[in-house]
Amino acid sequence: MRCATVTSTAGTTAAAWKDGEWRALPAPDLSSLLRSGTEWELGDAVAGAVPVLPLPTAGKVICCGLNYGDHIAETGRETPTHPTLFAKYADTLIGPTDDITVPSGHEVDWEAELAVVVGAPLRNASPAEAQRAIAGYTVANDISVRDWQRRTLQWFQGKAWDATTPIGPALVTPDELDPASGLEVLCRVNGIERQRGNTKTLVFDSPALLSYISTFTVLRPGDVVLTGTPGGVGMGMEPPTYLRDGDVVETEIPGIGTLTNTVRLTH
Amino acid sequence: MRCATVTSTAGTTAAAWKDGEWRALPAPDLSSLLRSGTEWELGDAVAGAVPVLPLPTAGKVICCGLNYGDHIAETGRETPTHPTLFAKYADTLIGPTDDITVPSGHEVDWEAELAVVVGAPLRNASPAEAQRAIAGYTVANDISVRDWQRRTLQWFQGKAWDATTPIGPALVTPDELDPASGLEVLCRVNGIERQRGNTKTLVFDSPALLSYISTFTVLRPGDVVLTGTPGGVGMGMEPPTYLRDGDVVETEIPGIGTLTNTVRLTH
Repeated sequence: MRCATVTSTAGTTAAAWKDGEWRALPAPDLSSLLRSGTEWELGDAVAGAVPVLPLPTAGKVICCGLNYGDHIAETGRETPTHPTLFAKYADTLIGPTDDITVPSGHEVDWEAELAVVVGAPLRNASPAEAQRAIAGYTVANDISVRDWQRRTLQWFQGKAWDATTPIGPALVTPDELDPASGLEVLCRVNGIERQRGNTKTLVFDSPALLSYISTFTVLRPGDVVLTGTPGGVGMGMEPPTYLRDGDVVETEIPGIGTLTNTVRLTH
Repeated sequence: MRCATVTSTAGTTAAAWKDGEWRALPAPDLSSLLRSGTEWELGDAVAGAVPVLPLPTAGKVICCGLNYGDHIAETGRETPTHPTLFAKYADTLIGPTDDITVPSGHEVDWEAELAVVVGAPLRNASPAEAQRAIAGYTVANDISVRDWQRRTLQWFQGKAWDATTPIGPALVTPDELDPASGLEVLCRVNGIERQRGNTKTLVFDSPALLSYISTFTVLRPGDVVLTGTPGGVGMGMEPPTYLRDGDVVETEIPGIGTLTNTVRLTH
């Protein structure tokens, strides 16, 4: 199943794609739907539905860094034995066509990622238990403010800028999509391809990440884990290249969808 | 004013200390009270009231590392130009007498800290604006799982273990307490003093931290910022010394109160 939070003249609702149309699900958005635990019973078709931010009230948003071999190489590091994790907030998340808004004067970089969404509570879960608790997969871009990321040892302050992390457009359930079989993860800036990775080459896959995180903190329905970015980020370019006002960032995972977000550097 | 979340045979409520007794405030806890924005009108006295976890549903819990000169020295680092920040979750928070629960086999360390609690929304706030938005100060211990903290470059996974961060027992409003004038921050393990710092020596004080954080993310009423720990942590001892099952950790800031928590290493 492919589901989303959609908006139309009738308001905003969780919805599922069926036979070429969005059909309402019984919750105002996917965050609420996942938390409620209610049956995903299909309601009426939603005319003119447009996908928006799928998970507006995500609880935990945890990111894995250094999880693709080629990106690890471009940062000059070795293959890790443990996942490198940091946190974001739901406040960072924006919808599939929303603007990425950052004050001007910063080094703003792209990081296309597969995101995994939790569907059931997890604590001290095995990878197999974690696999069964996956609600689905979506696309995200862990837009990073590199100058703040480098200010201190901890990346958090370069990663948790409000309204910078596009996510969506849809959540695809695991029965329809298996990242282990290989999904391409792409980023284009103004139409020029900058990243093309494959989830087959992830060091830590989604079940491994959820299991590992659940060792120290509970994961709940609607929580999101960003699984890391492949090579090709702007800070790895020669010379380093960052996003400018008006740049259009497209983040795509074929089989899930594409995010198209314009960069707005504000004064 | 000194306020808390207290429990009694009548249930749990936000409360304020007045003339030697806890008087009910109109919310089930301080998180709810701060978020509601309602007047802090004193109700009836609460017989047999005992302070519990003051902020059970804190939104953002952000920590500053390396913020006292002596602790920076014991980690071998230089005085920072920017605060080092990382995130925890409300799930990490426990009350002033709750057990600190961690699986056995880890290097569990203490970090006594002054915590500042946000009372009004803050975004792109100046230090003066941040100062006016402070709801109050409390005591916390940023108990750290050092082996996981060191596994990767990012400390988050050693800091965000559920049910490890004691906080409380009370929130003292800024009209009664000024950290800039110098509050002692103490940690004792089994009665032996391990840390004694003074908030006068903080590199970044509470208004500076809130202002800095508000540059990248909104702070809301009930959010908490842990301001860092002074020297004397276990990993800085010779040899490094960590908490054992049954150890009693006392964390004290005279003028606010004392947390007394027992370490439970589970199997």
